[in-house]
Amino acid sequence: MAEWTSAVGAVQLARLLRSQESAGAVALDRPGRRVPAYRSLADGVRLLVLEGRIPVATRLPAERELASALGVSRTTIAAAYEHLRAAGFLESRRGAGSWTSVPAGHPLPTRGLEPLPPDATGSMIDLGCAALPAPEPWLTRAMHGALEQLPLYAHTHGDYPAGLPGLRTAIAERYTARGVPTMSEQIMITTGAMGAMIALCRLFAGRGERIAVDSPSYANILQLMREDGARLVPVAMGEGLTGWDVETWRHTLRDAAPRLAYVIPDYHNPTGALADDDQRRALVDAARRAGTVVVADETMSELRLDDTGERPRPMASYDPAGSTVVTVGSASKAFWAGLRIGWVRAAPEVIRSLVSARAYADLGSPVVEQLATTWLLEGGGWAAATGLRRSQARANRDAIVAALQRHLPDWEYTVPHGGLTLWVRTGGLSGSRIAEAGERVGVRIPSGPRFGVGGAFEGYVRLPFTVTGAVAEEAVGRLAAAARAVAEGAGPVAAEPAGAFIA
Amino acid sequence: MAEWTSAVGAVQLARLLRSQESAGAVALDRPGRRVPAYRSLADGVRLLVLEGRIPVATRLPAERELASALGVSRTTIAAAYEHLRAAGFLESRRGAGSWTSVPAGHPLPTRGLEPLPPDATGSMIDLGCAALPAPEPWLTRAMHGALEQLPLYAHTHGDYPAGLPGLRTAIAERYTARGVPTMSEQIMITTGAMGAMIALCRLFAGRGERIAVDSPSYANILQLMREDGARLVPVAMGEGLTGWDVETWRHTLRDAAPRLAYVIPDYHNPTGALADDDQRRALVDAARRAGTVVVADETMSELRLDDTGERPRPMASYDPAGSTVVTVGSASKAFWAGLRIGWVRAAPEVIRSLVSARAYADLGSPVVEQLATTWLLEGGGWAAATGLRRSQARANRDAIVAALQRHLPDWEYTVPHGGLTLWVRTGGLSGSRIAEAGERVGVRIPSGPRFGVGGAFEGYVRLPFTVTGAVAEEAVGRLAAAARAVAEGAGPVAAEPAGAFIA
Repeated sequence: MAEWTSAVGAVQLARLLRSQESAGAVALDRPGRRVPAYRSLADGVRLLVLEGRIPVATRLPAERELASALGVSRTTIAAAYEHLRAAGFLESRRGAGSWTSVPAGHPLPTRGLEPLPPDATGSMIDLGCAALPAPEPWLTRAMHGALEQLPLYAHTHGDYPAGLPGLRTAIAERYTARGVPTMSEQIMITTGAMGAMIALCRLFAGRGERIAVDSPSYANILQLMREDGARLVPVAMGEGLTGWDVETWRHTLRDAAPRLAYVIPDYHNPTGALADDDQRRALVDAARRAGTVVVADETMSELRLDDTGERPRPMASYDPAGSTVVTVGSASKAFWAGLRIGWVRAAPEVIRSLVSARAYADLGSPVVEQLATTWLLEGGGWAAATGLRRSQARANRDAIVAALQRHLPDWEYTVPHGGLTLWVRTGGLSGSRIAEAGERVGVRIPSGPRFGVGGAFEGYVRLPFTVTGAVAEEAVGRLAAAARAVAEGAGPVAAEPAGAFIA
Repeated sequence: MAEWTSAVGAVQLARLLRSQESAGAVALDRPGRRVPAYRSLADGVRLLVLEGRIPVATRLPAERELASALGVSRTTIAAAYEHLRAAGFLESRRGAGSWTSVPAGHPLPTRGLEPLPPDATGSMIDLGCAALPAPEPWLTRAMHGALEQLPLYAHTHGDYPAGLPGLRTAIAERYTARGVPTMSEQIMITTGAMGAMIALCRLFAGRGERIAVDSPSYANILQLMREDGARLVPVAMGEGLTGWDVETWRHTLRDAAPRLAYVIPDYHNPTGALADDDQRRALVDAARRAGTVVVADETMSELRLDDTGERPRPMASYDPAGSTVVTVGSASKAFWAGLRIGWVRAAPEVIRSLVSARAYADLGSPVVEQLATTWLLEGGGWAAATGLRRSQARANRDAIVAALQRHLPDWEYTVPHGGLTLWVRTGGLSGSRIAEAGERVGVRIPSGPRFGVGGAFEGYVRLPFTVTGAVAEEAVGRLAAAARAVAEGAGPVAAEPAGAFIA
C-alpha cells in the first residue's frame, strides 16, 4: 500500500484537478461560484476516481500538503475528505492516511470515452466511441492489396517519418481533385488524426500558449491540448447547426491573438454542424490578420449523410499554400478506427518541421496500414467503402432519433446532415449525472462537459450513430431509465455540486 | 516571405537553442566555457538549420528581441548574426530582416537521425538508423496469419486502448516464461517503444521533473524527454561495456531523487553494454529507496549476438509487481521497425492509468500489426525471425569492425556482444564535424552529442550494424575521408566553437 503506484502526490493531484475542467474542482480558482469549495473539490476527486484517472486504493496526499498545493485552507481539504468518506469514495486510517475507494455496489471505475475491451463488454451498450465496424469486404481487400506491395518495402528498414511516398502522392492528388492543388511535399502521414494533432500542438503551441476552439468541440483533442499545457479559448458555436458565429471568432482572434485555432468545419464533433463558404472565408481572413494558424480537422468530412445541395469548399482552398490553414484528415472515422492512418496538409516547410520532430515522437506510421490506405485511394475502393459507411451511419442516426422521440420526447437536438454524433440537451438534467447513472443501468455515454471548456455543457450528452434496431431501442430505453433515476434523486440546486441542474 | 511559416519567434528560437544541448548554444547559460558567446550562439543556429529544425528561408527574430529572450547583450546577437552571414547561413536585407540560408554547394539540410526516403537516397549511405530489413519470409507470413484473424475484429469499432487481449496475453506469457510471472492486466500494447516512453513520461514526469539517464543514452528518447520539459540527470556508464557504475547510480538516486530513471540494461544503445545481475539488483534496490521508478528499455534484449554464458535476469524479476520497475519492449529492433508495435509491463494500476490517458494520445495501435505480432509470438515464428535478425546483425557488426580496422585504425571502441550499435571514439576529432563532413561525402552518421546531456561526447559517433560487404567497406572509407577533411580543416582549439577537438 505504501508503494508509489498507490499514491498520488499533492502537486500531481492539484494538476489533475485543474486539468479536469469538467469537474467542479476548477471552481476553486473561480470566485463567484455558489458551490462551497469543499464540495467542488470532493466532486473533482470523485470524478477522477470514477473516470479511472486516479486508481482505486490510491493514497491521497496529506491534508496540509494538498492545501498548500491548491492554495486553499486545510479546513477545506478536511471537509472535502470527510465528504468523500461519507459518500464511500475514501477510506482513512488514523495516522496512516486516506485511500480512494468506490461505494459498495458501485460499478468499477471506467472512463466514459474509453471503449470496453470485447471480452469485458457483457451487457453494457457502449455509446462512448463514435466509431463503426470496418466496411467489409473493403478492409480485407485493402489488406490483401497491401501484402502484394509489401515485398517492395520489406527489404528496407521500415522507418518512414514523412510517410510512404506513394500514399503522400495519393492524398495530395485527392486534395488536387477537390480543387486545392497539392504537392506530396505538403503531406505528412500520421498515426491517426490524433497523431497529427499531437505533432501540430507540439510544433505551434508551447506551454501556456492560447488555442481557440469551438465550444463545444471534440473531447479528446481538448484534453490533449490541456495536457500539453495550452490555454483554451472557447468560441461559442452558432445555435442549431448554423456553423460558426463569425463575429465572435473575429473578436476572439483579434483580442486573444491565439497561436492556433482548432475547428471542425465539416460535420462538427459533437454537434454535426457544417460551416458554410462565407464562414470559412471569413475565418481564414480573420486568422491571417491575427497571425493565427487554423487547424481544420476534416476527420468527418466524408460522412455526408444527406444530399443538401452543393458542398462548401475545403478550408484549404482559402489558403492553398497551407501557411494559415493546416488541414488534418484521417481514415479512422471514414473507414475504420483500427487502421490508425491520418495525415496533415500544410506548407512544405511546416511538413519538414513536423517530420524532423517525429524522430522523438512516434517515428513513423506502420507500413502495411499505409499500403492498405494507398490501395483504397488508388484502386477506387475508398469510394465504395465510404459509401457503405455513410449508409450505416445514416440508418443508425435515424434509429437513434426515432428511439429518442419515443423514450425521451423532452430531450432537444437538431438532427445533423452528416457526421457520426448527435448533441443532445437532456431536458434540464445533468449530463454528467445521467452518464454516471447510465453506467449502472448498462449504457455508456460521454457527458457534455467533456466537450466544453471550464465545465460548460453540463446539460448535454453526446450520442453516436453506431447502433440500430433493437440495440438502439434498448440503449435509449436505458438512457431514459438513467434520466428517471437522476430526476428522482436530484436535490435542490443550491445543495448540489457543479454537476447539477443547469439554467 | 512574411508569412509566419517562414519566421521563428525570439522565444521559440531561444527554446530551440536551449533544447539543442548538443550545440554550443547552451554554453550561453554556462559560465567558464572558453568559446565566446556569439560563436556558441552562431553554432547553435547553424546546427538547427543543418538539422532542418529551422527551415531554410526562415526569418530570424530582430536582434533586440532575441537578446531579450536569451538574456544576452544585443552586441552578442549582432556578432552571431554577422558570423552566420559570413559563413553563408544568413542573408539580411537592411530594414527588412535576416533569413536563414545554406552556403552554395552545401547539401540541403537534413536531420542526422532521420532516415532518407527511398526515392531520395541516391548515393548516400545512411547509417543514421539502427534498423534492419524485415526478416523475411516471417513478415509476410505473419501478415497473412493476421489476415486470417482479421474477420474476428473487423466487425468491432477497432479501438483497443490497452491492446488486443490476445496479444496482451501472449506477451504476459513470454515474461512468465522468462521467470517473471505476469498477468495480461500488467501489459499495455503501444505504438512502438516510443509510444510507450511518451505515455510513461507523461504519466510520471511532469514539466521540470528530474529523469536520471545513462550517459550516453538513446538520442531520440533523450530528445523526447527534453521536449517534455524534463530535467535530465546524466549518470556516467562504466568504461568499456562494464554496464552501470552502481556507486554513481546510488549517489544520484539518493541526492537527486529523480521521479524516473531510464536505463537500457540489455545491449545498451549506443554502447552495447550489458548490465550484470549484481548491477540490476543494486539499481532496483537504490531506486526503491529513493522512490524512483526505473524504466527498463528492453528494445535490444533479443539481439544477443555472441554466446557469453548465462544471461542476466530481466530487470522486472527484481520487482515482479511492476511498481518500481516498469519494462518497455518493442518488435521494432528485434523484428521490423515498419511494424511499430511495442509494449509496457507494469503494475495493473499503472497500466490502467496509461490506458485512460490514451484517449487523448494515440487512442490505440493498429489491429493488423497487433494480430501479426500475436501470430509470431504464438506460432513460433518469433524465434526463427529473431534468429535471422541476430545473424544479420552479427555479420554486419563484424564487417563494420573489420572496415574500421583497415580505414580508421586510431578510432577506439569495444566490440559489444549484442545490440545494433558501435560507440566509437573518433581519434580526438569532433564527431559533430565528422557527421557534417560525412553529409558532403555521402555517409550519414549521428554524432556523439545527440546521445549525451549538455554537449557531452563530442568526440564520438555511433555506427549501426546495418550494412555489410562492399557497402560497409565504402561507408567506412567515406567516414575516413570525412575524418581527413575535418582534421585538415580544423583550426586551433581556442578559435573553434563547441564542436571542435576535445580534450
